[in-house]
Amino acid sequence: MKKLTGIMLFILLLVLGKAVVAGSFGPGPGKISWKVGFHKEREAVPEAWYPATVPGAVQLDYARAHGWGDYMYAENWKDYRWMEDVYWTYTISFTAPHLKAGERFFFVSRGIDYKFEILLNGEKIFSQEGMFRAVELDLTGRLKKENELNIVIFPVPKIPGRPDDRTQAAQSVKPAVSYFWDWHPRLIPGGIWDETRFETRNEAFLTDVYVAYTLSQELDHAAVTLMVEGRNLEGLKYGWSLTAPSGETVLQENGEIDELDEKQFFLDHPRLWWTHDHGKPNLYTSVFALLDAKGSVLDEVRQKTGFRRVRLVMHEGAWAKPDTFPKGRSNPPITLELNGRKIFGKGSNWVNPEIFPGTITRERYVDLLNMALEANFNIFRVWGGGIVNKEAFYELCDEKGILVWTEFPLACNNYNGTPEYLSVLKPESEAIIKRIRKHPSNAIWCGGNELFNAWSGMTDQSLALRLLNSQCLILDPNTPFIPTSPLMGMAHGNYVFRYPRTGLEVFQEMPRSTATAYTEFGMPGAASVELLKKIIPEDELFPPEPGTSWESHHAFNSWIGDTWLMKDLLATYFGKARNLEQLVEQSQWMQAEGYKCIFEEARRQKPVCSMALNWCYNEPWITAANNSLISYPSIPKPAFYAVSNSCRPFLASARIPKFSWEEGELFSCDLYILNDLYTCIPSGRVTIKLKTADQEMQLLSWEFGKAPANRNITGPTVRGVLPHWEADRFDLVLEVEGHPEYSSHYTLRYRPREIPENSNKTRQLNN
Amino acid sequence: MKKLTGIMLFILLLVLGKAVVAGSFGPGPGKISWKVGFHKEREAVPEAWYPATVPGAVQLDYARAHGWGDYMYAENWKDYRWMEDVYWTYTISFTAPHLKAGERFFFVSRGIDYKFEILLNGEKIFSQEGMFRAVELDLTGRLKKENELNIVIFPVPKIPGRPDDRTQAAQSVKPAVSYFWDWHPRLIPGGIWDETRFETRNEAFLTDVYVAYTLSQELDHAAVTLMVEGRNLEGLKYGWSLTAPSGETVLQENGEIDELDEKQFFLDHPRLWWTHDHGKPNLYTSVFALLDAKGSVLDEVRQKTGFRRVRLVMHEGAWAKPDTFPKGRSNPPITLELNGRKIFGKGSNWVNPEIFPGTITRERYVDLLNMALEANFNIFRVWGGGIVNKEAFYELCDEKGILVWTEFPLACNNYNGTPEYLSVLKPESEAIIKRIRKHPSNAIWCGGNELFNAWSGMTDQSLALRLLNSQCLILDPNTPFIPTSPLMGMAHGNYVFRYPRTGLEVFQEMPRSTATAYTEFGMPGAASVELLKKIIPEDELFPPEPGTSWESHHAFNSWIGDTWLMKDLLATYFGKARNLEQLVEQSQWMQAEGYKCIFEEARRQKPVCSMALNWCYNEPWITAANNSLISYPSIPKPAFYAVSNSCRPFLASARIPKFSWEEGELFSCDLYILNDLYTCIPSGRVTIKLKTADQEMQLLSWEFGKAPANRNITGPTVRGVLPHWEADRFDLVLEVEGHPEYSSHYTLRYRPREIPENSNKTRQLNN
Repeated sequence: MKKLTGIMLFILLLVLGKAVVAGSFGPGPGKISWKVGFHKEREAVPEAWYPATVPGAVQLDYARAHGWGDYMYAENWKDYRWMEDVYWTYTISFTAPHLKAGERFFFVSRGIDYKFEILLNGEKIFSQEGMFRAVELDLTGRLKKENELNIVIFPVPKIPGRPDDRTQAAQSVKPAVSYFWDWHPRLIPGGIWDETRFETRNEAFLTDVYVAYTLSQELDHAAVTLMVEGRNLEGLKYGWSLTAPSGETVLQENGEIDELDEKQFFLDHPRLWWTHDHGKPNLYTSVFALLDAKGSVLDEVRQKTGFRRVRLVMHEGAWAKPDTFPKGRSNPPITLELNGRKIFGKGSNWVNPEIFPGTITRERYVDLLNMALEANFNIFRVWGGGIVNKEAFYELCDEKGILVWTEFPLACNNYNGTPEYLSVLKPESEAIIKRIRKHPSNAIWCGGNELFNAWSGMTDQSLALRLLNSQCLILDPNTPFIPTSPLMGMAHGNYVFRYPRTGLEVFQEMPRSTATAYTEFGMPGAASVELLKKIIPEDELFPPEPGTSWESHHAFNSWIGDTWLMKDLLATYFGKARNLEQLVEQSQWMQAEGYKCIFEEARRQKPVCSMALNWCYNEPWITAANNSLISYPSIPKPAFYAVSNSCRPFLASARIPKFSWEEGELFSCDLYILNDLYTCIPSGRVTIKLKTADQEMQLLSWEFGKAPANRNITGPTVRGVLPHWEADRFDLVLEVEGHPEYSSHYTLRYRPREIPENSNKTRQLNN
Repeated sequence: MKKLTGIMLFILLLVLGKAVVAGSFGPGPGKISWKVGFHKEREAVPEAWYPATVPGAVQLDYARAHGWGDYMYAENWKDYRWMEDVYWTYTISFTAPHLKAGERFFFVSRGIDYKFEILLNGEKIFSQEGMFRAVELDLTGRLKKENELNIVIFPVPKIPGRPDDRTQAAQSVKPAVSYFWDWHPRLIPGGIWDETRFETRNEAFLTDVYVAYTLSQELDHAAVTLMVEGRNLEGLKYGWSLTAPSGETVLQENGEIDELDEKQFFLDHPRLWWTHDHGKPNLYTSVFALLDAKGSVLDEVRQKTGFRRVRLVMHEGAWAKPDTFPKGRSNPPITLELNGRKIFGKGSNWVNPEIFPGTITRERYVDLLNMALEANFNIFRVWGGGIVNKEAFYELCDEKGILVWTEFPLACNNYNGTPEYLSVLKPESEAIIKRIRKHPSNAIWCGGNELFNAWSGMTDQSLALRLLNSQCLILDPNTPFIPTSPLMGMAHGNYVFRYPRTGLEVFQEMPRSTATAYTEFGMPGAASVELLKKIIPEDELFPPEPGTSWESHHAFNSWIGDTWLMKDLLATYFGKARNLEQLVEQSQWMQAEGYKCIFEEARRQKPVCSMALNWCYNEPWITAANNSLISYPSIPKPAFYAVSNSCRPFLASARIPKFSWEEGELFSCDLYILNDLYTCIPSGRVTIKLKTADQEMQLLSWEFGKAPANRNITGPTVRGVLPHWEADRFDLVLEVEGHPEYSSHYTLRYRPREIPENSNKTRQLNN
């Protein structure tokens, strides 16, 4: 019943007489509630029980019961450490329902984290390792009048002997991020984390309906097959309809379930699903009804589907390299082609929007995904350190026209392909693929994060990655699979404004780089003063120091020494900050300009480069400083708006050689039109000005012609000597005449020339 | 009955009362024979029938019947062109055998090339596309007293509209080489190409026994499972024994077939299988008997097996790269690790030893593989342009301790993953994997040749390669899989002595190259005068010219203009050759020195580089000139012995800056000890001399210490001014004192200084 939302369930209840006995969140015959408690031995009974929110997390239930403060405040997160290593038992009591002939009573959960056993009236009826497979237990015939269902959650998985870090997760299919990351505290959730309920079903019911299709080469035709799973389906009938976005029913068929395997349906000229920036995310509605001999509906699955062809293809010129002997291979393909159109992937790395995924709501997804439209993003890389997102995420990406790159939960570890590990990874990945393949937004399957780099140590030979490739091929062959990111030609990093190794700024480093896709790059920025006050005790607020809540919230020693606040680096540009407001302003300014530089440089490198995804979009708690564009829960930093500007499909852009300028210096920058449009491409005139708060200097006026579709234009280099201004910054402004929506600006550091006190003396000495 | 050889079948006949009715090659009740004829329409009957050799090829039967000359001579191969496009029907008549109760009568073939139908008494009973799947047809109950079995071979597969080249093969699992290659004429075989016979079987019989195992991390323990397939096995018993190389039976078990799935056998301290250069290729003998309730043997499979762990691992230092941001991935692993020991792969690219694979005999394999031991080779890359070799090849590699890199039949094409193509590739690859996985020698599965290069156009996303990866993972997870060669870090080419692009020699180019594995590199050399006279008509013999039989035999315009004879290049070193003998001698000399340079340079680049495989080892017909070390059928060129020297596990070696020297020049070369040994590594003294036929000049005596296991030693640079010699060449000799088996020599071009006739005048002008 995976595809049934709450509202649809109500409708079905009326139609089918289904009864749902739910936890504290849902409707049901009599209010019943989950409770939870912990115990140190597997067989023991909790000494105390606390009310449990389902879905949620055992930690939150305990904290709530004990009146703990917000885990985001100061170093409160440290109090949760012991909870990893104990058993937690959920319990719920319920009266056996009255079942009509042929009805069955089920316990259903979409996700329980991580290893668990389920007991009914003290008897173990189920066990599982893995949080991504749904649990569907037929309780019929096992029930007494009064019943108790217990779910025993085991201590979180850890490889013995490893330090308290992500490496403990290297033999489990549990997201590694919660074991500690440079923007995530050590806080490892457990418990029921997705929709969970009791449910009355007919003898025959559906468990999965997959509308599979193949598009013709010319995309003018879809051959559709229905892959239906359920119980006791033999000999039954079905009714199926497919309704177009217009509301018109385009396919309708009744038949025998047993003949469905051989059945193909043909749809002419499907309205294709597009990303929001290239078209409409057209969705069709499939309604599949299971019918008895008389045609009565026994069960029904209603879902959206979309028709799209997504491929990873070679960039222009890729086959021409290598061009010398001895000769290697050409770069692997990473250019997204959607419905035959090469598109530039602009987006970000998505991380868990909550530390406890059980608390992620549809509303949170709505907020964050609406902001993605505002940011001009057309793709998210859902990073493998976190969870595989809930259904609502994919439903919303389908609706909004945003592509998803879905990673399996492997990140920065060597997931050794032991039989034990693979025996969990295989069914977990199968459940993930079978759920997500239904969504047209899902454009790339990926084995996980940075697995082919030294800190992970996996290779193309790793059985876990070969298994995932095989699973995706078998279950979803028409969606590309890549084993990890980065691959050959692609690049991750850097994550700083000035590279420690070379001493050069991102402004100089990025133009020297070449990559087919920049799929992770960061630029740190502080949270707002308002947010900082929510997480840092007042006496620690200023100046920020290591060893305080600032460090717990990733301002210091997170990645390399000075990250992510980079106080020392800021001081080299601005001197020591006088107050918190000033420090935050400097940090956010550099984050914004740094990100603009990378996004626009990546776009300038089109068509070799085809993707720019910054690290990261959001964050699961309030960090003091971090590479994210959005502070928890959904508060944009200034960099968010900067990036949004850099990701407009069409804009005037400048390659700027450095951030900090002085009076009398020869300022220069290279002009470009960045164009990802395929239609309605404008021509026009762009005027380049330098502006301070009260002064303005015009450098050039450049008339640009109409670009070919999806092609940039290389413009002239602008040059001009910087005059004396009483200012600490200036704006480089690219004004497109009559089209402010294509105009751009960059805010750069400026210093008027200082007359040294002993300048005369110096000059004399030099003579 | 795949594992039964002829002799074993005889024994079984005695034991089991099996009867075999075979073709012209085998025993049977009365001599019966195959005949073959062609027809232009599928349903037609041949106008004439010719005696057929089975296994063989329809082309050869026709040619024999018509008294044609050798297809290797001159341009005879052109006469076969029409045979591609007609149907060929094999026919055989036989009397129904007398079957005892429960006996069944089968038609069995290990391989029929390529698309075919089988008819019994005019009725179609089977059809297949694919030459690598065995055919096993139960004829019982379908037979009359007198019977006729027909096999209709379809025209060779071609993609319509493609030119007459390999691209026609891009939608079939037929080796592309026979469609034309730069060392192979257009000659596309068809017909029955592997063992084929009639056979009486019991009701219950075995079709496959696979002794699968997993070695413990420390290699001191094997967990063995038996994967048994057959018909009507339910309820039967088995007896199984495993006998060590010593003859001792180390495992013996009787039990129920039905319980075999759950059964594990444990073998302590297995004697591991090693390549000949690192240990002994220890083979165990498995005898699996199918028993009835009384313990009588119903069927038996006897086969060799070996215990080895083979991995592809990262080279030393690989994880340290890349070391800058934005950062890509590290090189994929290609270093062979056998039983925990990293070994340098020295070998060659194996191609079909016959144009018509039906004529390849075990004896041919024996000859060629014995020569591989002489060449100090420990690995063959069996190139994907050719066939997957017959069983005898793998049996011999098992016995001799030679690793095999097995490619699936994909080469230099874009094998588009259409449903039709995949529906053939899947069962064909399954048959290939299930046969070859039993052989310890098989060390690498590979999707095919150069598929990720421009001329092929496949990528990591290609469904065919993802399918092969998946198939290998599922059926043989403990043997590495690579999608193609070259991969990132690896290299193919060059194939010439002097690079046209740079004008530099292989002596200068190779030291500038870096690669993790040189898995194809060539150096052309002419065939011997004796062989040339066999294939080139006398009036064309000298001087060789394009447009003659020389070109048909690849001397001209084969790859780039001057290949493979490279007459023009030779002339730049030696002037115009005066006769055939001189031309051949020059060509073979340069081939030998060129190959020595590459093999030894690749070894010097250890541990980054871990493999050196030249293109190619053998050839399927007599070429006039070609990169092969061995002329057809198994006649070594001088380069064979040169390469054999360069591949000794331990030798003194020199990096030489160029091939051609003059009197008065400062000769120099860099000395090395190349060492692939793990034990008994010598120390010693090497004396470096320059020698002509009658003179000698000592340059240096270098004492080298004991190298660490599997490590080279970098020695000094030798320098000396070349004196006046009356000679056209000199030998650089590295004599290891008391150990001629470690000594090396290189033969280089030499020219005494010429006094120009007008030298005085020139000098005056310069003044």
